[in-house]
Amino acid sequence: MSIALVIPDRDVSRLVAELNQRLPDVVIEQWPDIAQPEQVEFAVVWKQPAGSLADFRKLKAIQSYGAGVDSVLTDTALPDVALSRIVDPGLADDMVRYLKTMVSVYQLRLDRFIHDQPLQQWRPKRPRPLESIAVLGMGALGQTAANHFIKAGFQVSGWSRSAKQLTGVRCYAGVGQFEDAVKSADVVICLLPLTKETDSFLNEQRFNCFKPGAVFINVARGAIVDDRALLAALDMGQLQAACLDVFRQEPLPAGHPFWHHPQITVTPHISAVTNIQTAAAQIVENYQRCQQGQPLLHQVDMQRGY
Amino acid sequence: MSIALVIPDRDVSRLVAELNQRLPDVVIEQWPDIAQPEQVEFAVVWKQPAGSLADFRKLKAIQSYGAGVDSVLTDTALPDVALSRIVDPGLADDMVRYLKTMVSVYQLRLDRFIHDQPLQQWRPKRPRPLESIAVLGMGALGQTAANHFIKAGFQVSGWSRSAKQLTGVRCYAGVGQFEDAVKSADVVICLLPLTKETDSFLNEQRFNCFKPGAVFINVARGAIVDDRALLAALDMGQLQAACLDVFRQEPLPAGHPFWHHPQITVTPHISAVTNIQTAAAQIVENYQRCQQGQPLLHQVDMQRGY
Repeated sequence: MSIALVIPDRDVSRLVAELNQRLPDVVIEQWPDIAQPEQVEFAVVWKQPAGSLADFRKLKAIQSYGAGVDSVLTDTALPDVALSRIVDPGLADDMVRYLKTMVSVYQLRLDRFIHDQPLQQWRPKRPRPLESIAVLGMGALGQTAANHFIKAGFQVSGWSRSAKQLTGVRCYAGVGQFEDAVKSADVVICLLPLTKETDSFLNEQRFNCFKPGAVFINVARGAIVDDRALLAALDMGQLQAACLDVFRQEPLPAGHPFWHHPQITVTPHISAVTNIQTAAAQIVENYQRCQQGQPLLHQVDMQRGY
Repeated sequence: MSIALVIPDRDVSRLVAELNQRLPDVVIEQWPDIAQPEQVEFAVVWKQPAGSLADFRKLKAIQSYGAGVDSVLTDTALPDVALSRIVDPGLADDMVRYLKTMVSVYQLRLDRFIHDQPLQQWRPKRPRPLESIAVLGMGALGQTAANHFIKAGFQVSGWSRSAKQLTGVRCYAGVGQFEDAVKSADVVICLLPLTKETDSFLNEQRFNCFKPGAVFINVARGAIVDDRALLAALDMGQLQAACLDVFRQEPLPAGHPFWHHPQITVTPHISAVTNIQTAAAQIVENYQRCQQGQPLLHQVDMQRGY
């Protein structure tokens, strides 16, 4: 029996070292160099090529190497075994730090001053009064973000597929309540999972529900946003600014209009990066649970897709 | 008896309205339109032209319309009466918000990502490990900033002219201890008053005391910095970045090298702006104290210059 890492788009040498140290008796191989595919019982995957797990005949479980599983589920030949994801409390801390920093950046109008600098324009202005925040997606990260902003004195609303309750947060659920959730928010933060239902969910109609002049921050997945609808909403003033850390295609391709839009701040998917030690510990825990026939940590509901 | 406002460089109509409401029986005039200069007993001033207070023969007190008095003291014909300044607790809150935002911006490398954006460069990188902060100037604003960063988990050192004590802060005093105060700080924040002693205080020798690769933030006065020494320190890598909210000449003149330096973030003196209501309340309080022969609030020690 062995563990296969099917993570072609990044250097996983540190992860391999961590796993070897924690599981010295287990064979850990990196796709495509899998000597005995029929021995693989546990696969750690991220943006795996379609069909790359098909030869793992004894596969018992798949572990996504991230908080999301959307890039895993695009594989139409994905084996029908339990799928789990990393839930890293440090990831939530990183995410909150990114979000609170960006909200402060917009309050202080640093986006404008940084834009003014190469133009040599000196235009002092008092802070933007950003006082209310809507969080789209009330999973682990969404709830942590909502709690932070409540404590920081903001009015916070939360929107999710199914109804949630969180002290101090006005919670809304389902498409029918989307407008109520966002219509009075100065800042809208997207932390939705990417599923069939949320692909291009933020389209012209949805942006038109926002409070005119809102600031939009996307730290979830780029594909949740209809790029053209976002650009139109900015150009018409329906949004005053957008901060995007995630994109439909990453890296954001050269020539994409987001790069040069004066109201868009682009960051290269840095709002939350899986901590290798935390990930290694959860991978080891789930591998051992899998061997002992126990339920996995953070298993994904395949119906919902997260 | 009357109050004169000698604040030529900005629109003070809201301040006049606030003062008229609070002191309905007192004549409040704006320089240069002072009908009876010999009736002026109290002057509120900011960047007043030299000699503009000379005709106020009955002047009892001067109130700076700001936290600093450096722009008031440049007047060589300044009448020899008590001088006070505004101490606005909200000013400290604004300042702390600016500082904590900028420290987070540098931790997350937003300065680099924003610089990369027009170049269409996607270069994700983990946060900068900024863990220690030196605060230069331990007055009201400096102490508030130091306390904030202590609470936020940073190691904080403080440097001032005379020795201070503040729980959790390693305090240093005098030019002889400057190097000890800054040599291990990842971020150096300047909150010094501008006096004869601090004019161009941050010169080549002083920047060379910083930890190599430090981030420098100036929210005090531009003239404390030797501009050429700052540019040289950035170009040699002695500093990795500088955030400047204040400048020797404001607005920062077109063509000044700060505007286009890739490691400098310029903001147009917005880190702390006197709140009109707070200022009006302190002006009224000091005017009444002045009328009753009581000591003024926040009176300046003319020897020290702040």
